Amino acid sequence: MHCSKCHRKAVTFIRYNGMYLCKEHFVEFFERRVKKEIRKQGLPKGTIAVALSGGKDSSVACYMLWKILKDHKDRKLIAITVDEGIKGYRDKTIEIARKLCNELGIEHYIISFKDEIGLTLDEISEIRGELAECTYCGVFRRYCLNKLAKEKDAKVIALGHNLDDVSQTILMNFIRNDLERMARMAPHKKIQPGYIPRIVPLRMVPEKEVTLYAYLKGFDVSEDECPYAIRAMRLLYREFLLQLEEKHPGSRHSILKSYLELEECLREKFPPAKLQPCKICNQPSSMPVCMACQLKEKLRKSKEK
Amino acid sequence: MHCSKCHRKAVTFIRYNGMYLCKEHFVEFFERRVKKEIRKQGLPKGTIAVALSGGKDSSVACYMLWKILKDHKDRKLIAITVDEGIKGYRDKTIEIARKLCNELGIEHYIISFKDEIGLTLDEISEIRGELAECTYCGVFRRYCLNKLAKEKDAKVIALGHNLDDVSQTILMNFIRNDLERMARMAPHKKIQPGYIPRIVPLRMVPEKEVTLYAYLKGFDVSEDECPYAIRAMRLLYREFLLQLEEKHPGSRHSILKSYLELEECLREKFPPAKLQPCKICNQPSSMPVCMACQLKEKLRKSKEK
Repeated sequence: MHCSKCHRKAVTFIRYNGMYLCKEHFVEFFERRVKKEIRKQGLPKGTIAVALSGGKDSSVACYMLWKILKDHKDRKLIAITVDEGIKGYRDKTIEIARKLCNELGIEHYIISFKDEIGLTLDEISEIRGELAECTYCGVFRRYCLNKLAKEKDAKVIALGHNLDDVSQTILMNFIRNDLERMARMAPHKKIQPGYIPRIVPLRMVPEKEVTLYAYLKGFDVSEDECPYAIRAMRLLYREFLLQLEEKHPGSRHSILKSYLELEECLREKFPPAKLQPCKICNQPSSMPVCMACQLKEKLRKSKEK
Repeated sequence: MHCSKCHRKAVTFIRYNGMYLCKEHFVEFFERRVKKEIRKQGLPKGTIAVALSGGKDSSVACYMLWKILKDHKDRKLIAITVDEGIKGYRDKTIEIARKLCNELGIEHYIISFKDEIGLTLDEISEIRGELAECTYCGVFRRYCLNKLAKEKDAKVIALGHNLDDVSQTILMNFIRNDLERMARMAPHKKIQPGYIPRIVPLRMVPEKEVTLYAYLKGFDVSEDECPYAIRAMRLLYREFLLQLEEKHPGSRHSILKSYLELEECLREKFPPAKLQPCKICNQPSSMPVCMACQLKEKLRKSKEK
């Protein structure tokens, strides 16, 4: 097939808008949406941190921000990688992240669960009890990211979430009646003391397109999936959304649209919780003791048994 | 297993609240929720119409309303059956509906697509073009119900939708970004000229429990499914919600809860459309020509070809 915009050979078909695109026009189509989204979400002056796991999504988010910021004198991009300690999986992607930062000339910082929590995720998995690894990992990852970003005086943290991730999360929060969590989704507009707001530059782009972009740009990308993903509820939602998208192209977009239409009313219904320094670790928290410290305590007790 | 409330043998296990119930306690549990819901949604004085297809849901809704209203002097229950004209399916359920009304002493009215639209659903199926049967059927059914209920001066129409139906519809509207349709879901509070508001007495009760109730009460119930259901998008949602409920009992309830929390904001965002008499049929419509008349015209043209 030919590109719908020129005579060249198409590399992809975008089902939800019916377009065939060649490499050049796909790259243009991709970058346009990311740039537009970044403009909309806003990039404050100062240090911009990107959460770089080394997977395809965060690598592409990092590259796009580098591309946009390289000529900005008043903004500086740094990358933060959280090493959860997952043997045979994270070691590889950390190498990829390191290489990418080297090539682009981005300062790269690594923060590990082992140093901050005292246990790797593999060790947590052994003693986790009834909670899935993803529960610990999500909380500790946010804790680590925020801590290091704050130390580096970052104004914002960019996450690699794509449209598939975002639409899954919206749907999950809606179905679980967790509207408060829905109201707190990134991008964050309100600035809270000690808490670095998040932006999500790729939220308008389906996962498949991020993969294709990474491939076309020749990025080094690991094909591995996190070994603990199997226990994530997300899989059921993922499967359903793929089926739905197959029958009704554009479903992921329309979920995001529903969310955006309700956003204002959600933010009114659930105004940001007043954050306070956690009594134990001093990091911002909506409770006297933050969730990371609560889970750390849970693990300590469970280890003693 | 024994009933969680007495020493008798349990007939069912309610997964989302962990209770085993005997026949008596299940019936009590079932009826309590339906009565509570009816009180909440409100039953105006005068004629109450129930849309009775003869399937298990509408039969149970009809029976429950009869049970509640039989001692009310200022409210009268009537049943309306829409005969879409589906050979081998609707004929059977119409007989069941007729029998139930006879037994309970309820006035029973039948209105048919053939008389009102000029075509049975089977005939529509032959010439339908790109729209599924369900699209025509839904619009024409609403049209017929409203027309006959208005002629009988009904104050409200009760529908048999159970929790599975309602949670599917909410999810479908959310995913399709059809928030306006979500805002217009029954039960209706605002009264619009010419339009009979709907109530949904069974919306808190899962389908499985309606089936069990119908069985325990010895209702004559057809096991057949509408032959056109196969083309309904609903099936995908149904499948997903069953899987979800299996893994997370209570998911259907939490979807309804999310909806109820957003209801006020949705109704503000989408105030009821001003209804006007349709230029052709005089029935209430948000457009100059109502959807039923538009679809009738579409069918007429398609038949001429």
